[in-house]
Amino acid sequence: MDTIRVSLGDRSYPIYIGSKIMQDQDLVQNAITAKQVLIVTNNVVAPLYLRQLETTLSAKQQHSLILPDGESEKTLPTLSRVLDVLVQKKFHRDACLIALGGGVIGDITGFAAACYQRGVEFVQIPTTLLAQVDSSVGGKTGVNHPEAKNMIGAFHQPNCVLADTDSIRTLPKRQFYSGLAEVIKHGLILDREFFDWLEDNLINVLTQDMNALTYIVRKSCEIKADIVAKDELEQGARALLNLGHTFGHALESLKGYGEWLHGEAVAIGINLAAETSRELGMLDAEDCKKIRSLLTQANLPIVDPNIDSNELFKLMKLDKKNSSSGLRMVLLKNLGKGVVITNPNEKIIKKVLQAQSKS
Amino acid sequence: MDTIRVSLGDRSYPIYIGSKIMQDQDLVQNAITAKQVLIVTNNVVAPLYLRQLETTLSAKQQHSLILPDGESEKTLPTLSRVLDVLVQKKFHRDACLIALGGGVIGDITGFAAACYQRGVEFVQIPTTLLAQVDSSVGGKTGVNHPEAKNMIGAFHQPNCVLADTDSIRTLPKRQFYSGLAEVIKHGLILDREFFDWLEDNLINVLTQDMNALTYIVRKSCEIKADIVAKDELEQGARALLNLGHTFGHALESLKGYGEWLHGEAVAIGINLAAETSRELGMLDAEDCKKIRSLLTQANLPIVDPNIDSNELFKLMKLDKKNSSSGLRMVLLKNLGKGVVITNPNEKIIKKVLQAQSKS
Repeated sequence: MDTIRVSLGDRSYPIYIGSKIMQDQDLVQNAITAKQVLIVTNNVVAPLYLRQLETTLSAKQQHSLILPDGESEKTLPTLSRVLDVLVQKKFHRDACLIALGGGVIGDITGFAAACYQRGVEFVQIPTTLLAQVDSSVGGKTGVNHPEAKNMIGAFHQPNCVLADTDSIRTLPKRQFYSGLAEVIKHGLILDREFFDWLEDNLINVLTQDMNALTYIVRKSCEIKADIVAKDELEQGARALLNLGHTFGHALESLKGYGEWLHGEAVAIGINLAAETSRELGMLDAEDCKKIRSLLTQANLPIVDPNIDSNELFKLMKLDKKNSSSGLRMVLLKNLGKGVVITNPNEKIIKKVLQAQSKS
Repeated sequence: MDTIRVSLGDRSYPIYIGSKIMQDQDLVQNAITAKQVLIVTNNVVAPLYLRQLETTLSAKQQHSLILPDGESEKTLPTLSRVLDVLVQKKFHRDACLIALGGGVIGDITGFAAACYQRGVEFVQIPTTLLAQVDSSVGGKTGVNHPEAKNMIGAFHQPNCVLADTDSIRTLPKRQFYSGLAEVIKHGLILDREFFDWLEDNLINVLTQDMNALTYIVRKSCEIKADIVAKDELEQGARALLNLGHTFGHALESLKGYGEWLHGEAVAIGINLAAETSRELGMLDAEDCKKIRSLLTQANLPIVDPNIDSNELFKLMKLDKKNSSSGLRMVLLKNLGKGVVITNPNEKIIKKVLQAQSKS
């Protein structure tokens, strides 16, 4: 088992990564000390892992809430359902919420923990690759507004993250590939060596070799933990993690949540960010091609031929990463070197969007 | 004008207290630096102050939202209305929300600021005595759950508080008296001298002498700022501020929000806490009488003859200040010395409740 520490003063916490972690009674019981726990999960994950977790936590006063699966559930009304259970079952301030599932479950559960009684503990047990390499780490929680993704939320750090790499193997393949988009993103913004490793070892990742899986989760968590420790509230360096997300979120809004998986939208966004970087003379054509190639080999989309580029551009301008000074985007100077740009040339962005939408 | 500083490291902020502060263009413009502002207010306060504030802020991109008045509005659906405006008007992360009104407006607006894009700035312009002496200071924000008060929220400190003492004079008298309950509470938990001053000078307060009003606001803010600076997240000393609130919140839940004003419920709660303290042998009968007398002179209720004491006790046990180890209550050792007690003798509490409900 690997342990990575997210260093945030009195909000520091460990990420445990490895095979069969969820079955490790000692680890789970030490990680979750509260007497009262509410396990929040969904109807896809529950049949796989809920019973086992309930057994492990049998000494505690516990309840569970099984939500429907899907990004379309990440709303204020669903948050309200979680809060209703907490109130009705008389959960106290020293209770702990447990998010058992992917990014949607983690985001809703974390936000409920942030809001209930102005903040109670929570633990992340991410069961998807995407959640293990990205959303479970760093304390971003929240729900979508019907008109814009992740618009409502809180920074609320978990008490710990339990990333059981076996659960990756039970994922539908499309979801697995979707998680790889964030893994590739981590290499692109900060770690050339990791990008190169992914190019060389993608076959082992795609065949779900356990060593390769553990390595990409660990490496991603290390990169993300490092950025979050430097900039918890995203006032600087943390913005780099949004590579591909300005395009990606706009695409998800335009298509409706659920049409593209989050990682797929991010993959398209990464390719568009790379193309924009190339058009601006920041990234050379060869590197651009490498990015396209790695994304494609990872079975990820790089364009959406059916987008209306004007509509997409309008939605990008609503992105919450913007300030009132204008559009803010993450672009690439090199493989392994992301950079935040304010007010990039709009004509070039539109040109890239138009070219992609026709391709 | 008086200025008090709430010392919270990089979340420190000033409280400006005095007459005609809202008309002080330089002060208001310096205090609110954001380019985009959303003023949230209600239909009682808007006719009195909104136009003037809009004029003062005319250089900014501004919108206003006028909510219905009342505690019954402090709900997740109302929060949702504020967030809808922010999304629809394309407010950025560097925008500022302005709460113009009493405690309900401050709590909703502050919580919207805490949640929108995981946190934007906000400024409190409290227009009631209760908000000036209590709810606008300290960063507690939130909404009620249908079954329990203030159950959903966040700690989110304002950028500054502008307490215009003239606005106190436009309050309905019942609301003014309601605010005095929190003023008296501040003396009781921590400052015997202030309690004595209130006994000696209540007539000047009741006749709304401007010096007396400014003094009670300043003194209350000083006491509260001091506690909040020591214990922002209510893990220790801050709990003292809940004197009268375990009973008070239960009473508000039992009667439905709006039957008793918050301060009235707190006044009844303070009296019950004093009686409980006396029954437990902590507070002598003479001091108990002084408390009853000051509350009564301030035109505040000290009992509710129509409560079902069993129901009230059940609701107290749901109070969010409790831990899973049991009921937590603030009681009094002396005038000027509050103390947090875990698991006080339930029989004595029930006895006090029964005695009060029949009196």
